[in-house]
Amino acid sequence: MRNIKLTIEYDGRRYLGWQRLGDSDKTIQGKIEGVLKQITEEDIEIIGSGRTDSGAHARGQVANFKTASTMPLDEMQLLLNRYLPRDIIIKELEEVHERFHARYNAEGKKYSYYVWNAVIPSAFEGYHTYYYPQELDMDKLQAACERLVGTHDYIGFSSLKKSKKSTVRTVSEIVVERKGSILHFAFVGEGFLYNMVRIMMGTILDVAAGKIPLETIDEVFANKVRANAGATAPALGLFLDEVYYPAEQK
Amino acid sequence: MRNIKLTIEYDGRRYLGWQRLGDSDKTIQGKIEGVLKQITEEDIEIIGSGRTDSGAHARGQVANFKTASTMPLDEMQLLLNRYLPRDIIIKELEEVHERFHARYNAEGKKYSYYVWNAVIPSAFEGYHTYYYPQELDMDKLQAACERLVGTHDYIGFSSLKKSKKSTVRTVSEIVVERKGSILHFAFVGEGFLYNMVRIMMGTILDVAAGKIPLETIDEVFANKVRANAGATAPALGLFLDEVYYPAEQK
Repeated sequence: MRNIKLTIEYDGRRYLGWQRLGDSDKTIQGKIEGVLKQITEEDIEIIGSGRTDSGAHARGQVANFKTASTMPLDEMQLLLNRYLPRDIIIKELEEVHERFHARYNAEGKKYSYYVWNAVIPSAFEGYHTYYYPQELDMDKLQAACERLVGTHDYIGFSSLKKSKKSTVRTVSEIVVERKGSILHFAFVGEGFLYNMVRIMMGTILDVAAGKIPLETIDEVFANKVRANAGATAPALGLFLDEVYYPAEQK
Repeated sequence: MRNIKLTIEYDGRRYLGWQRLGDSDKTIQGKIEGVLKQITEEDIEIIGSGRTDSGAHARGQVANFKTASTMPLDEMQLLLNRYLPRDIIIKELEEVHERFHARYNAEGKKYSYYVWNAVIPSAFEGYHTYYYPQELDMDKLQAACERLVGTHDYIGFSSLKKSKKSTVRTVSEIVVERKGSILHFAFVGEGFLYNMVRIMMGTILDVAAGKIPLETIDEVFANKVRANAGATAPALGLFLDEVYYPAEQK
């Protein structure tokens, strides 16, 4: 069996997220599996690096699948992109080691989050940025980003009620850049808990808008109470940009 | 009666174009008139600078309407943007001279057209760029742009069968710029015939891809035969950027 790695770009606005729900065709995984079945005549299950939420996007989601098909990769990519809807694109297809596993081997991820920070919203960016017109204190915003970086128990910044596994994670970088009305945040870390990027994002904005004090961040790390953190920023501003793997597994 | 000028941005992918069709709610004009009725309790007809096609977009469509309402413009803009769908935005609202007419007074327009020129399409730009993966000869492309500029009878570059009015127009500028996979074309002229930007665009691409010779452009000007020009590029790449008015009418 060949093991094939996919790098996938998708606009999530029309979908219920990455993970297949029963036979639903409204998920990214479901759509890709459907086309793979058409092409290979096999029942293929693809393994994603992780889920993405309903309405969230990806520029570099990674997945893998096993197949007996001997079809050249070029041809397979062409057929996938021909039969997939135009908002799901296979950017790369490569044959990898049989032990490569898109979820288990992932050792880090990069997410982007976009905020439309202006009074007048945009007709074009409405599904790809979070419209947040309040004035933001850029010093506080910067400080909130810095305080969220590090190795902490992030359970208070997640939607997990409790967890048997460790909820300690390392966030290595939160970088913000403004271009006109758009604020672009880049989050890099070894792994993120359920809704963690969106809750960190909502907290950063609430701090910068003066809705909650900067110190809240330390309190949430200490007391692990989700309710004290900021709002969950909506999925539509979130992009999974890249999944990192150890060099020998690429 | 006050005469109010609107500057409108819209993402046309979900709409049947600018112009209201009966009672249809699937047009930009219909949507805006619907909300104006809600706000003012008057039956308001808005006058656009011109139609835009089904699926085409605008960053600066202009329209005007008369109203007896005394509502402050700030408040009216806020309410419009609150009740309009998020892909239609009122960017500006101003009170203008009672004789201002968005169509009759328009003395020029600027359009943009975006082409996605790469083998792998984009999941995000599929409704805002025309996917044209063929290799393009940039010298031929430049030459085609230059040859389409000037004062000519453009009927062969339009979808008009015939016309009682003059079909001579002046196109003052066609500028092209590449940013990564995206080619951006800017068209400036005093007025454009039905489908004229899209047929010029299709012709430019067909010349640059080597499908038709550069000389075709002169032949179409001379013989006025639409069938000899290039394909009509799809509406989804087209943006109405700006409508020009004489200074005293602003």
